[in-house]
Amino acid sequence: MSSDTVTSTTQTANDRIDGWLARLDAALSAGDVDAVLELFGPDCYWRDFVSFTWNLHTAEGPEQIREMLDDTLERTAPRAWQREGDADETDGITESFLTFETAAGRGRGHLRLNGDTAWTLLTTLQELAGFEERTGADRDRGVHHGVVRGRETWKQGLERERAELGYERDPYVVIIGGGQGGIALAARLRRLDVPTIVLEKNPNPGDSWRNRYESLHLHDPVWYDHLPYLPFPDDWPVFASKDKIGDWLESYTKIMELNYWTSSTVRTAGYDEASQQWTVEVDRDGASVTLNPTQLVFATGMSAVANIPEVPGQDVFRGEQQHSSQHPGPHAYKGKKVVVIGSNNSAHDICAALWEHEADVTMVQRSSTHIARSDSLMDLALGGLYSEEALAAGVTTDKADLIFASLPYRILPEVQKPVYEEMAKRDAEFYDGLEAAGFQLDFGEDDSGLFVKYLRRGSGYYIDVGASQLIIDGEVKLVGGQIDHLTEDAVVLADGTELPADLVVYATGYSSMNGWVAQMVSQEMADKVGKVWGMGSDTTKDPGPWEGELRNMWKPTQQDNLWFHGGNLHQSRHYSQFLALQLKARMEGLDTPVHALAEVHHTS
Amino acid sequence: MSSDTVTSTTQTANDRIDGWLARLDAALSAGDVDAVLELFGPDCYWRDFVSFTWNLHTAEGPEQIREMLDDTLERTAPRAWQREGDADETDGITESFLTFETAAGRGRGHLRLNGDTAWTLLTTLQELAGFEERTGADRDRGVHHGVVRGRETWKQGLERERAELGYERDPYVVIIGGGQGGIALAARLRRLDVPTIVLEKNPNPGDSWRNRYESLHLHDPVWYDHLPYLPFPDDWPVFASKDKIGDWLESYTKIMELNYWTSSTVRTAGYDEASQQWTVEVDRDGASVTLNPTQLVFATGMSAVANIPEVPGQDVFRGEQQHSSQHPGPHAYKGKKVVVIGSNNSAHDICAALWEHEADVTMVQRSSTHIARSDSLMDLALGGLYSEEALAAGVTTDKADLIFASLPYRILPEVQKPVYEEMAKRDAEFYDGLEAAGFQLDFGEDDSGLFVKYLRRGSGYYIDVGASQLIIDGEVKLVGGQIDHLTEDAVVLADGTELPADLVVYATGYSSMNGWVAQMVSQEMADKVGKVWGMGSDTTKDPGPWEGELRNMWKPTQQDNLWFHGGNLHQSRHYSQFLALQLKARMEGLDTPVHALAEVHHTS
Repeated sequence: MSSDTVTSTTQTANDRIDGWLARLDAALSAGDVDAVLELFGPDCYWRDFVSFTWNLHTAEGPEQIREMLDDTLERTAPRAWQREGDADETDGITESFLTFETAAGRGRGHLRLNGDTAWTLLTTLQELAGFEERTGADRDRGVHHGVVRGRETWKQGLERERAELGYERDPYVVIIGGGQGGIALAARLRRLDVPTIVLEKNPNPGDSWRNRYESLHLHDPVWYDHLPYLPFPDDWPVFASKDKIGDWLESYTKIMELNYWTSSTVRTAGYDEASQQWTVEVDRDGASVTLNPTQLVFATGMSAVANIPEVPGQDVFRGEQQHSSQHPGPHAYKGKKVVVIGSNNSAHDICAALWEHEADVTMVQRSSTHIARSDSLMDLALGGLYSEEALAAGVTTDKADLIFASLPYRILPEVQKPVYEEMAKRDAEFYDGLEAAGFQLDFGEDDSGLFVKYLRRGSGYYIDVGASQLIIDGEVKLVGGQIDHLTEDAVVLADGTELPADLVVYATGYSSMNGWVAQMVSQEMADKVGKVWGMGSDTTKDPGPWEGELRNMWKPTQQDNLWFHGGNLHQSRHYSQFLALQLKARMEGLDTPVHALAEVHHTS
Repeated sequence: MSSDTVTSTTQTANDRIDGWLARLDAALSAGDVDAVLELFGPDCYWRDFVSFTWNLHTAEGPEQIREMLDDTLERTAPRAWQREGDADETDGITESFLTFETAAGRGRGHLRLNGDTAWTLLTTLQELAGFEERTGADRDRGVHHGVVRGRETWKQGLERERAELGYERDPYVVIIGGGQGGIALAARLRRLDVPTIVLEKNPNPGDSWRNRYESLHLHDPVWYDHLPYLPFPDDWPVFASKDKIGDWLESYTKIMELNYWTSSTVRTAGYDEASQQWTVEVDRDGASVTLNPTQLVFATGMSAVANIPEVPGQDVFRGEQQHSSQHPGPHAYKGKKVVVIGSNNSAHDICAALWEHEADVTMVQRSSTHIARSDSLMDLALGGLYSEEALAAGVTTDKADLIFASLPYRILPEVQKPVYEEMAKRDAEFYDGLEAAGFQLDFGEDDSGLFVKYLRRGSGYYIDVGASQLIIDGEVKLVGGQIDHLTEDAVVLADGTELPADLVVYATGYSSMNGWVAQMVSQEMADKVGKVWGMGSDTTKDPGPWEGELRNMWKPTQQDNLWFHGGNLHQSRHYSQFLALQLKARMEGLDTPVHALAEVHHTS
């Protein structure tokens, strides 16, 4: 293709986007919802993060878009729709980034046209007017030069803040959990001047990574893993070791000047509807502190309360029994017989580490599992958005995050299926080896692969970083079946197979994150907010009805002023932006009417 | 101007640069030095950092360029000269970035044509072929996924390295001094796999900043101050507090995984010409360690050995006497009478801090001083290269550093004069106020201002961050004159003025950095390498003959394997690149013949 042709294609694509945005602008400005709907095709999605809905919400199809606009258009007062950068046209789909403004702030989005009507539209709030982050030319001056007696230095100010916040004055937000999720959110809130305390149970930032098994490295590549504001240096390894990530989080926490309370746990928390404040009883390094924030965020990790199956004979067994979250690592088990119940990520990781330390390891697979090799995931699933090649093509992390978000969850499985078909072909020999070893494989119930499975249930897969080869080679023994009972020294399966054991590890997963609410607040409140994560796909561990977005994550819940935050590094980075804006808006007393607050269909 | 005109001007400028580079390429490839010289005008400069000369050297005029090429061309084998980005034409000068290659590596440069012949050419070595930093797509993988018994983790590897380096195996480089200079150089050497130990006398990285007076903020704006590889976040204040910089340096040192020995001082160091190794006796936190590096870098700060004038009566005076470097800060001196001898940066800073703490302060000005207000410096002197506006215009820090370096020191005064003429106008009222208070002002001996004065003597100026107003207002008393003697309780000037004093602070500057060599190695070696800093401008404290580059900084000295590194944050960032490449090349045994090794004209 000549460069003239490229230019002309781009021009046509730009014109198409510009024309559509002009028509959208006119229809929205006129408050003419019918005219807006004419711009969408019959198969259409409008996903909104905060900008129209003060919610994370996907309106699916014309009728839901109508409902959304009827509820939100007047007060949102959107305007100034502009294409951002050049549009792209491939296979009849024209797509582009865009910017817009609302009564509350400035937004950014992404549009896909199928022909001349919209297939997908993403709108996201980027900043609140009047409460912008002070960066670049608007950054703080640091010092107004001049000599002033008694002026407080930066250090004195920081020390005073740390002495006062939580004691002499209330934080507006308390974040329970100081892993990557809590840290990323706190960094964003700091830039927005929202007084925030992060509570972390470990003695140092980063310990939640350091405490994990020795050989752990990130399973996702570096381009996918940046935190906000301070990208990793450009020599950062593709898959960093857990201790390196731990150290980075510690430095990051310091650089971002977070109010980060280490060795701090929540004893109890309660919400007073009258004062609209929380009372959070904290054990800070042995001392009791009562915090009264307005907003409480659970960033305690998707892996919440441990699921341990009840098995007859657990009281008879003379060896050790642990949930995977209690497993202290492999060092004490050299030469021991270990039975690991489960076949997801934790089970594989623990088996591999035990094998490395010369334990005699058996994995018990109870149901089929999706295995995706880390390299293949990087190349096939993430490479288009998060890689050196993507960067070279102008797809920065910010842009990649928006493109990733531009695909509504309803259509994501269809988009993902070809990726995993390709993976199955590419790694056919590998999968054959696993099946030959007796491993029960799946690619998700509809073959939509790992990321969709992660969204649906947060489990049911292993990102292979080496353990699968141990199973293929028989180095880690594999047995399929259900546990029937334990004897004094063995696990007995339903088919009578007896597995001698000094240690049984239950790598049997976790309950929903609202289990933390039950533990710290009350079962009643946990039931009120309901199940966290999953989207109602009507697949295993993610019962219907369809909800369109992840349950309770990063958005308002049925409990005022109670929020959930977390996920992998990518999600912690991207969604912290929208949660931070929701919290800031409330602190500033802006009107934040929530459209389509999700109902609770499941309590766990 | 229409966009067509802009395009056509750019095209003409590009063509001019391209044509010149093609002719240069042909002449160099043919080894035809006469033809090369035809491409330069009569007033011409070729400044080279390492790429041709293995030195920092400016060839001034055709004859020096001929000498340089006669000596270096054949072995350098330069080729592939290319314009980088669009050229720019202003007032008959066409300028552009450029790239090229040599036998040893890849280079980058900058060219200014006056008409069709070169006025200034800068050539710099950017990386050594075969020894590139592993970044971006070439970055380390971090882990090769797979389960391997006994594999060393990242953390174990780092701990092993730290246990071994300096004990079981020799570092290739030892850097004395762990301020911004030592840290930036060590970060670059780390990326180049050069085993390096940094020796820092304080207990923590960043302490050299933290230990300074309380109200200190950077005098240079943030855009000028980045360290390599990890820019400050975009909300970093324009003028950061010294403690914030200290904390940043500490985090930076950790993130860059430097072998950074705290609480470590050099007792003695000696060089063995036979083995070409140093013996460095170190006190590391009370324990003796002997290091045997091949290369020794003094990054001890431009402010080396304190100059204290000998004054009759110093033995009689009953109060305290301190050099500015010994001054413990103002806290103990509330209500005390303090006489500060000197009127440069330290004197002003100390006077202001003492005034803040309600001491009775008198400054004794012995000679005229250049004062430049920090804001004016930022706007007039640095803003074109280091500012938000510059960034928006595409002038990244890397590009700004190259442009800054593209002006040979010979012509820098002429370029700088208009800046300070403008400053004198802009701040006329301020300067009038100072003169009215009796302050003796200058703008450098040739009115070329602060940066040139800094290069010539590293002293003689104050970047005003507020103390000048105290002098204007008489809050800090000012007396001009020379000290004659001290009595039991006063400083007496030559004109008989008696200044009662509880404390005398000698803010009387420092001797040359080779004073450190005298202290740690020998006077003989200090004399052998000679004076450090300054360029032979034949002005006060910078005697001729003209040398063209800073003496001994970042380049080979008369002592094999002995180097000096330092300067402000800008210089620490930029010049560490060229010093790191010189060290790496030597470690790898590359041929590094030095062109025009500077002679020693002064020993201090």
